[in-house]
Amino acid sequence: MTMINVTVWNEFRHERHSSAVRSVYPEGIHQAIAAYLASHPDMLLKAVTLSDPEQGLGEKVLNDTDVLLWWGHTAHDEVDDELVERVCSRVLAGMGLIVLHSAHFSKVFRKLMGTTCSLRWREEGERSRLWTVNPSHPICRGVPEQIVIENDEMYGEFFDIPAPDELVFVSWYQGGEVFRSGCTWQRGKGRIFYFAPGHETYPIYHTPEILKIIENAVRWARPESIGDVPDCIKQPPFEKI
Amino acid sequence: MTMINVTVWNEFRHERHSSAVRSVYPEGIHQAIAAYLASHPDMLLKAVTLSDPEQGLGEKVLNDTDVLLWWGHTAHDEVDDELVERVCSRVLAGMGLIVLHSAHFSKVFRKLMGTTCSLRWREEGERSRLWTVNPSHPICRGVPEQIVIENDEMYGEFFDIPAPDELVFVSWYQGGEVFRSGCTWQRGKGRIFYFAPGHETYPIYHTPEILKIIENAVRWARPESIGDVPDCIKQPPFEKI
Amino acid sequence: MTMINVTVWNEFRHERHSSAVRSVYPEGIHQAIAAYLASHPDMLLKAVTLSDPEQGLGEKVLNDTDVLLWWGHTAHDEVDDELVERVCSRVLAGMGLIVLHSAHFSKVFRKLMGTTCSLRWREEGERSRLWTVNPSHPICRGVPEQIVIENDEMYGEFFDIPAPDELVFVSWYQGGEVFRSGCTWQRGKGRIFYFAPGHETYPIYHTPEILKIIENAVRWARPESIGDVPDCIKQPPFEKI
Amino acid sequence: MTMINVTVWNEFRHERHSSAVRSVYPEGIHQAIAAYLASHPDMLLKAVTLSDPEQGLGEKVLNDTDVLLWWGHTAHDEVDDELVERVCSRVLAGMGLIVLHSAHFSKVFRKLMGTTCSLRWREEGERSRLWTVNPSHPICRGVPEQIVIENDEMYGEFFDIPAPDELVFVSWYQGGEVFRSGCTWQRGKGRIFYFAPGHETYPIYHTPEILKIIENAVRWARPESIGDVPDCIKQPPFEKI
Repeated sequence: MTMINVTVWNEFRHERHSSAVRSVYPEGIHQAIAAYLASHPDMLLKAVTLSDPEQGLGEKVLNDTDVLLWWGHTAHDEVDDELVERVCSRVLAGMGLIVLHSAHFSKVFRKLMGTTCSLRWREEGERSRLWTVNPSHPICRGVPEQIVIENDEMYGEFFDIPAPDELVFVSWYQGGEVFRSGCTWQRGKGRIFYFAPGHETYPIYHTPEILKIIENAVRWARPESIGDVPDCIKQPPFEKI
Repeated sequence: MTMINVTVWNEFRHERHSSAVRSVYPEGIHQAIAAYLASHPDMLLKAVTLSDPEQGLGEKVLNDTDVLLWWGHTAHDEVDDELVERVCSRVLAGMGLIVLHSAHFSKVFRKLMGTTCSLRWREEGERSRLWTVNPSHPICRGVPEQIVIENDEMYGEFFDIPAPDELVFVSWYQGGEVFRSGCTWQRGKGRIFYFAPGHETYPIYHTPEILKIIENAVRWARPESIGDVPDCIKQPPFEKI
Repeated sequence: MTMINVTVWNEFRHERHSSAVRSVYPEGIHQAIAAYLASHPDMLLKAVTLSDPEQGLGEKVLNDTDVLLWWGHTAHDEVDDELVERVCSRVLAGMGLIVLHSAHFSKVFRKLMGTTCSLRWREEGERSRLWTVNPSHPICRGVPEQIVIENDEMYGEFFDIPAPDELVFVSWYQGGEVFRSGCTWQRGKGRIFYFAPGHETYPIYHTPEILKIIENAVRWARPESIGDVPDCIKQPPFEKI
Repeated sequence: MTMINVTVWNEFRHERHSSAVRSVYPEGIHQAIAAYLASHPDMLLKAVTLSDPEQGLGEKVLNDTDVLLWWGHTAHDEVDDELVERVCSRVLAGMGLIVLHSAHFSKVFRKLMGTTCSLRWREEGERSRLWTVNPSHPICRGVPEQIVIENDEMYGEFFDIPAPDELVFVSWYQGGEVFRSGCTWQRGKGRIFYFAPGHETYPIYHTPEILKIIENAVRWARPESIGDVPDCIKQPPFEKI
């Protein structure tokens, strides 16, 4: 079995400042996701936070990570630019990246996309329906064609992202919006999956189908190997000029 | 007739420091391209350089630009980060951007792509052949299916870019390489075209077919309008929740 | 001004067999759309039907068509295979094709896509919302970011199409579904736009915003020129072997 | 280990009619490829030909196939339309399909693409160079960035295919052409890989790197499961209308 080294990064602020959030994720969103993933024999988990030394992603941790999950919301600006640079470089070198929910506005995602990644939003706890539009994609393995989330934050179009390489999920919201809620891109040698569900006040990361999608995405994003970031190379000719 | 405000930006260093380059582009690459484009009644041209006040792209100039062409090579690092930010924002708001030759490594292009944009290269003056792989694309209008460039710098794969939205040209090099030499992307509301031909020591920007492609690309990249960069919007529901 | 020769093809059955449909489209869907388009000085219109000689698309009509619109529902199987072949060949040679609503299941569209083009559907007259996910696309020119259709047939995912080259619209339905309702593809040299709105019993083709999208799509799909369908070519070498 | 049922289909004409071809592939191209693949413990191989009962692909064989490889050249027209229909349906239901070399002009590939699939060609035994433009794609696993084929048939642009979902390889030819020689598409639930190398008179299918690519492509194209071809479904509403 090929083992996957997975690191779940969370800013871990809502959980400490709000008892409502804490009641849903007592150990933090990162621990909820990590506990689920760690129950699979092919995954080795670390869960780290913005408050950890080196903001949780020192050289050693990052260099041991095959797939990184990122959750942030209120503290995007506190992430060091130098760390952002290192995370993005490692993605370009092959590390998989799963960007969750409000991390659409993280420095890491915006830098890799090159766009604002802005969107519409509304926090009313409305019902959403996550539809797959690519049912044979590996991320959809064992996932029903529709997942109902009874209480969700609305994320709506226009979502200012580059056209995804693959569109996997589109969400319907009770209030009238749609959203490209599961999208993949490749940047350099790294695979990126943005996945919209996952608000801090709803138990979305306790939903088996949502966790299954994240599990699938980790396996899909796993690199064969991680080398160096490519640089320009002066090349002698192969044929006579 | 809809007029297009076109600005050609050039770092303008090779032309001043090398008599060989100056003999090919006495007024600079920017003036050669601008003179050609200005001969078309639907285009209003400005030609600016890194040495101009505000590095050639003050607020007024940039805000009057519908399509920006960018040529740089030795002075990428001298371009102010603040200017890079403003140029990228204007692209996201709708401005077209034509990235020429060695500007694959410009700060502006790398920021919009999110990748290293590295490649292989060789400067031996070899023959190249530019093939269209998308003959009905507007950028190919009136352009032959193959353009031979007798003396060219080689740019070869692997070119570390996001998968293009559209692949328009692929180049063949005498020494044995291939290159995705004409690629389009959309970022935000702006259209981007990367076009590989155009070394400073060869008269490539005096070649009618190459100039025709650049002319077509300007018309293709022209925005209908340029508004504001999108930001997140809180949205009341349209339907009862 | 470049004139566009537009032909609207309609099977024209519902309108003759159902007074309910006739009350919405007394002259037929084709005439409603053609009348709107003909009000634009750059468009020359023909409206033809399955019951016309040569099923409305004899050699002369087809060879004079730059952009073809296709509406069918109950009589897909009656369209001659030979006509399907000729229409597809002309698309590959450059003719634009706008495929409307239930024509997702037409022989022409299925042949060009290579997939079943099946979908979910429900005819309950529910409300739908057409959202643009690509606001700077030429097909969205002058079109609001959301169009509400008070009474619509539901078309839902999974829609079995090749991944669109460009996704332009996504629809929301009151009953809980989403749908990729505006999609583009290129096949050969021809541009294809599938557009979902347009049921026969609702006045959708009398809605200004819907007609505006169709008008934009016609201009977007117009070919520069229409030549021959490409065939294999034996090519002598350009370089010494 | 998940086993993959692989069937290699070959028209098997050149090998019987030409001693030159027979000296390269004494048992036929299908047996050469099948022997290589069968040496991998996760693959179960069948090798069939046009001359076999039911043209090699009766219901039982096809229904036991996870991934089908297709090689044809002189006898495309002899393949029954009914068989073409069954093969395409099984691809839409999930079967992987590897289309080799001159099978670009097979009925199966053309039907799935919807285009002519025409190209330029020349049979002079010239050198080609297969470059990867997507080095982290699973099909490139363990494959060098460049493969030199000393004697190859030239296939050149314009290749009349739908824009590939992923472009994996681009070939350089000594005579001056380029070609999109490794392309992927999804159609329905099935994955398709077109791979250009493989002429009958050159020992290309004895080249380890070429065989490695085919082996990788088989694993990449393997479906999780194969169900029914999707059909239209009438769907009751999930939400109150």
